[in-house]
Amino acid sequence: MAKIAVLGYGTVGSGVVEVIETNNAPISVRAGEAVEVKYILDLRDFPGDPYESKVVHDINIILEDPEISVICETMGGNEPAFTFSKKALEAGKSVCTSNKELVANHGPELLEIAKANHANYLFEASVGGGIPIIRTINECLTAEKIDAITGILNGTTNYILTKMDKEGADFGSVLKKAQELGYAERNPEADVEGYDACRKIAILSSLMSGKYVKFENIYTEGITKITARDFAYAKVMKQGIKLLAMSKDTEDGFFAMVAPFMIPDTHPLYTVNDVFNGVYVHGNMLDDSMYYGRGAGKLPTASAVVGDVVDLVRAKGEPLPCIWSSELQELTDIAETHKRFFVRVSVADKAAAEKEFANLEAVDAGFADEFAFVTEVMTEKDFAAKAEKVNVLSRIRMEG
Amino acid sequence: MAKIAVLGYGTVGSGVVEVIETNNAPISVRAGEAVEVKYILDLRDFPGDPYESKVVHDINIILEDPEISVICETMGGNEPAFTFSKKALEAGKSVCTSNKELVANHGPELLEIAKANHANYLFEASVGGGIPIIRTINECLTAEKIDAITGILNGTTNYILTKMDKEGADFGSVLKKAQELGYAERNPEADVEGYDACRKIAILSSLMSGKYVKFENIYTEGITKITARDFAYAKVMKQGIKLLAMSKDTEDGFFAMVAPFMIPDTHPLYTVNDVFNGVYVHGNMLDDSMYYGRGAGKLPTASAVVGDVVDLVRAKGEPLPCIWSSELQELTDIAETHKRFFVRVSVADKAAAEKEFANLEAVDAGFADEFAFVTEVMTEKDFAAKAEKVNVLSRIRMEG
Repeated sequence: MAKIAVLGYGTVGSGVVEVIETNNAPISVRAGEAVEVKYILDLRDFPGDPYESKVVHDINIILEDPEISVICETMGGNEPAFTFSKKALEAGKSVCTSNKELVANHGPELLEIAKANHANYLFEASVGGGIPIIRTINECLTAEKIDAITGILNGTTNYILTKMDKEGADFGSVLKKAQELGYAERNPEADVEGYDACRKIAILSSLMSGKYVKFENIYTEGITKITARDFAYAKVMKQGIKLLAMSKDTEDGFFAMVAPFMIPDTHPLYTVNDVFNGVYVHGNMLDDSMYYGRGAGKLPTASAVVGDVVDLVRAKGEPLPCIWSSELQELTDIAETHKRFFVRVSVADKAAAEKEFANLEAVDAGFADEFAFVTEVMTEKDFAAKAEKVNVLSRIRMEG
Repeated sequence: MAKIAVLGYGTVGSGVVEVIETNNAPISVRAGEAVEVKYILDLRDFPGDPYESKVVHDINIILEDPEISVICETMGGNEPAFTFSKKALEAGKSVCTSNKELVANHGPELLEIAKANHANYLFEASVGGGIPIIRTINECLTAEKIDAITGILNGTTNYILTKMDKEGADFGSVLKKAQELGYAERNPEADVEGYDACRKIAILSSLMSGKYVKFENIYTEGITKITARDFAYAKVMKQGIKLLAMSKDTEDGFFAMVAPFMIPDTHPLYTVNDVFNGVYVHGNMLDDSMYYGRGAGKLPTASAVVGDVVDLVRAKGEPLPCIWSSELQELTDIAETHKRFFVRVSVADKAAAEKEFANLEAVDAGFADEFAFVTEVMTEKDFAAKAEKVNVLSRIRMEG
């Protein structure tokens, strides 16, 4: 019998309890022994909840109980999650988490503490919810040199962009509706400015390189400037507009970024719509692969946490594979990276644009007041220098 | 230093050698020690090949060498692959394979022999080439009750159907071109009649249920009867036609089948085109997920084999997770399962069809000599009884 503790009885924490209850039989078979929730740590009480009697308010009850070998940290945020996770690992208890903030901030440190204490630290649920992308990198594609990860990693922005695309609506009105439906937070900054996707690609980039990619060093641009007109052009061009979080190891060097991109309708990520996430992985032997599923939500995320529980119970502290050192991964300035750009200028600036951008491809979506075009492949730096000389209304990077 | 042997120096076997050579550094890091090919078993000699000196013709050299703890069986077919794998496992050597035929025929037996001899038997490459679908079921989605697996598991037929769709061509002419290009065998029966997909879904169905689904018991129908007209109708209906291999645990019972299906253009499998494979997995907690990649080809398949090598080297004989007993999974007769059908009859039979099939939805693709329609949801048995009374020109099942 493996007895576990859940830290935080919010959406994901209560999902973990529900998954363990609903699928107890197959989970126990796969874990090699019965799995039972012994404690739930929360500041609140939950009178009438079937798990009421398991709720405790003091982390030390859990840390000092020798029966507890596995802890699910589903609190979110840096503190007290960081202190609790550290203490648990130092006590030789393995920890799994859905906390992308904490993993992006302290992943290598927590992995080292785990290793030093014959414990494991797992974080499948921190990226891509129900998509087993962390295991795919750490345990499945182990014969590969992964050279590119390109993900739609934030469900809220993908929902907003999908609605804008389908309904021809503008960002503001779709965001408002998404907030009313509960798909976007009242303060939507973390999602719409790309900060959430940035933390997630920081984690995936680190696993891709084996070194530490800090989220603070990743160029991040949100979707707030995308307009209905951009989508009108995209449609003419048979492209979609997606918030991509990417990490690439190319001739330009190793770089990571988050920004809205146009992608062609033949790209595997094109059909990842609504709140779904997709992660596209390129390896030097296997070529393209793609992983698709729910990126958030109580039960998909909890299922990922409990998948970690199964591994932790089976492993009994023996080290599970994860290569992520605290050595910093050097990142190329994205100013040096190459791509094409979709650009809109006022029709008055057409001549200036044509002079500045050689071999541009004009795009006509029926707006007489504008001139739109796609540039040649150029560095971000070159583009910025040219764009300064033209009054650019909007520019979107192009992928694939 | 882990020394391994490769049985069969054909396409996949030579790919295994190439992957180990190209990605030796990351593979060795992930395996925990350097990995080196010591023997290659083949009936042929390979004069001038850089690995010429490693080629042996006698399996006993490998079986009797205590330095060899991991063997890659990339011979294909039942014999001598079965005997060699059995002997290797009995000698306590772990085996990984790309041989779907052998796994579908003898999987549970070989897993039991492995277990009894402190060895492992892995077969990631036997299904879906570069898609890590076996690990996804065995090691990632361990908190789930998987209730449906629906796959495009055969690249040759998917290539043919994609070409028919895009070019409006008929099966025969596309097959001929595919054979010329080497995408289809001279004897294409195993692919176009669905036998290859059948073996693969037998393996996935077994892992989904934990029991043994024998391929001989899976209803299998190929793509030879699909015509250009069927695609013309599909286009009007915003559907694609795909050879689906599926396994479902529903109110109808547990059933598995391989057949061409229409799927809507919103289905994640719709965009799986050309030689790519896709596997759609539904779990009771995570909802929908999809895994996409190259289903065949030298290097993607070899990458999957070498991923198994990494696990086998790490595990050193400790049991790796795989639940697949020799107890037979009871299968529901597909005659009892429910679905809708797309049907074409001669225009002369329109009245008869309308009489026989209540609430049909007519489909007009501009063919005056035909009457086409979609039925209500009904069992296969009911459909067959009704179809007998009408002169059906073609019928395709509908999914999703």
